[in-house]
Amino acid sequence: MQLTIERSALLKSLGHVQSVVERRTTIPILSNVKLEAHDGALGLNATDMDLEIAESVAGEVAQAGASTAPAHTLFDIVRKLPDGAQVELSLDTEGERLVLRSGRSRFNLACLPVEDFPVMSSGTYTHSFSLSAADLRGMIDRTRFAISTEETRYYLNGIHLHATTSDGVPVLRSVATDGHRLARVEVPLPEGAAGMPGIIVPRKTVGELRKLIDETGMDVAVSLSDSKIRFAFDDSVLVSKLIDGTFPDYERVIPINNDKILEVDCATLGKAVDRVSAISTEKSRAVKMTVEKGQVTLSANSPEAGSAVEELEASFDAAPIEIGFNSRYLLDILGQIEGDAVRLIMADASAPTILRDVTDGSAVYVLMPMRV
Amino acid sequence: MQLTIERSALLKSLGHVQSVVERRTTIPILSNVKLEAHDGALGLNATDMDLEIAESVAGEVAQAGASTAPAHTLFDIVRKLPDGAQVELSLDTEGERLVLRSGRSRFNLACLPVEDFPVMSSGTYTHSFSLSAADLRGMIDRTRFAISTEETRYYLNGIHLHATTSDGVPVLRSVATDGHRLARVEVPLPEGAAGMPGIIVPRKTVGELRKLIDETGMDVAVSLSDSKIRFAFDDSVLVSKLIDGTFPDYERVIPINNDKILEVDCATLGKAVDRVSAISTEKSRAVKMTVEKGQVTLSANSPEAGSAVEELEASFDAAPIEIGFNSRYLLDILGQIEGDAVRLIMADASAPTILRDVTDGSAVYVLMPMRV
Repeated sequence: MQLTIERSALLKSLGHVQSVVERRTTIPILSNVKLEAHDGALGLNATDMDLEIAESVAGEVAQAGASTAPAHTLFDIVRKLPDGAQVELSLDTEGERLVLRSGRSRFNLACLPVEDFPVMSSGTYTHSFSLSAADLRGMIDRTRFAISTEETRYYLNGIHLHATTSDGVPVLRSVATDGHRLARVEVPLPEGAAGMPGIIVPRKTVGELRKLIDETGMDVAVSLSDSKIRFAFDDSVLVSKLIDGTFPDYERVIPINNDKILEVDCATLGKAVDRVSAISTEKSRAVKMTVEKGQVTLSANSPEAGSAVEELEASFDAAPIEIGFNSRYLLDILGQIEGDAVRLIMADASAPTILRDVTDGSAVYVLMPMRV
Repeated sequence: MQLTIERSALLKSLGHVQSVVERRTTIPILSNVKLEAHDGALGLNATDMDLEIAESVAGEVAQAGASTAPAHTLFDIVRKLPDGAQVELSLDTEGERLVLRSGRSRFNLACLPVEDFPVMSSGTYTHSFSLSAADLRGMIDRTRFAISTEETRYYLNGIHLHATTSDGVPVLRSVATDGHRLARVEVPLPEGAAGMPGIIVPRKTVGELRKLIDETGMDVAVSLSDSKIRFAFDDSVLVSKLIDGTFPDYERVIPINNDKILEVDCATLGKAVDRVSAISTEKSRAVKMTVEKGQVTLSANSPEAGSAVEELEASFDAAPIEIGFNSRYLLDILGQIEGDAVRLIMADASAPTILRDVTDGSAVYVLMPMRV
């Protein structure tokens, strides 16, 4: 193996790849990135056995070949090379060391045999479709905050993707919940997604995918089966195992008979909730909303710190209601609403409340109230 | 007490004050800031019993008075108020709550009696002098990285300040060491500092002082005795107890017979050390320098990761030498050298090495080598 490659291109790919590699692993080769030089390009692969990333970078290949080297160390070195540098990668004569040369720097990195690098069984994908980067970004950003971190409820540790209909229109939905809040986002069902199985994409995969989306404006090619999902970008492919579990029947959590409708400026509400919560006790961060005709009063109380009250104009015409929320959960949702106004659809102080963007019906949020 | 004050001015002062207040304290009133309204200004005081800060902010005082309120909560609230807001502070009728009003927000904060707020005994200062912000900044930045964090060697947990002569010229010196490296910076002795006691300024005081310096371009008025130091800025005064200990006789650590002189471009050396250290084992981060006529070769070895070699042009004319350094310690020092070139004055692989800026003699650094 021998090739020359531009530092910035290599750095970008190593950035993606090293992020998949776990810092601590008991299997040494999982700390390594697989490097494969052939036909004017360097292929890079990394895996944690559940999530696999493959990248390709253009390079001047003098001799094809492959090896594996420590991913974080290699990334650290390339990051510290000067901007604009050319990097030469080769193997030493025994093939046991990856030699990196750039300017007057020379590094020898311990390799592990490329044959030992784990390959995820390929399997076949039953469904394939294409999603715009913007749609995929929206489906992730507006749900991922609600992913559960409780490992015992492993079937909630990811985003649930499935095909269904909404008011008779076929849609692709992403849903996440931790039992306290739920987020549901839908986009028109892409061609090829009809009949796809309902799947759960793990949190780590969601995070890596989200980083790759930020670097592209192109459509993303998605392929899936009931055990695996694949996201193909221009120069990167992410393949992930799915969470082997059943996502709960979330529809029954979304109330349909709530009838107290409050509409309020979203940014104003967010800032007021943030301020009032400064007083609430560290742990619960409870904020009380007292809603009456034309007005919301936010308040918080803490036995140690004191109290806070804030008034906001609002559109509300039902019987007055007092309801409490976890301020951080409320802020998470408000932070995802892009329109000017948010609509809260409430029943009473103990029933789940629905939140929506007044002008965009593609996302629905459900928030359990707190006793205050 | 009742006054109106501009949010941004109050925020700036609270920022200074809350930084002195410890997050965890067993004495409740130490979590509070003392607020005192009088004569068109609000005075703010905070203390941790070793370090005290007093600030003054212009405000429209309707009624003089004083109270104490939780510093971090108050800071958090004012931070979250909109830019340009006016803040009204008053006491409730019982005098037990601080009432903060701004726009449609209202906060009641639990107060503690102002009489219980601890006052540091004032004592008398034996010496007073004035230092430019730039001089004071240089004396801090070029020494503080070497302050020891070993609590058992409490007399090294600060910066040693004392008056002495350097080549017959009276100077004020700041010195810090942790036993592995030493930094010594001097400025011309300011008027009034002659005969001052040698003192040790604690790490926390150094940190708070450094933040205040960044916001001023003015001279700082320094007063001190053998137990206390006071730094007066335009609107802030910092008073700190000193570390009650004897700073070791550091002069005998600075070698005088080193004769192998290496000069090398400082930025180039720093970048090369940083790169090479990417390979060295996490803990020691050792880097070996092989110095010979006109050239330095940096190298690092790690049994797991591999090896790194980097060559640099240098000016060196003595017998070749191999010497190892902790790369982080070396980078700390190189990071403080503003000139183009650094001079390393070595004896052998086991003796302390002197480092200096080639064009600026005001700072001297001593670094113990590592066996490599």
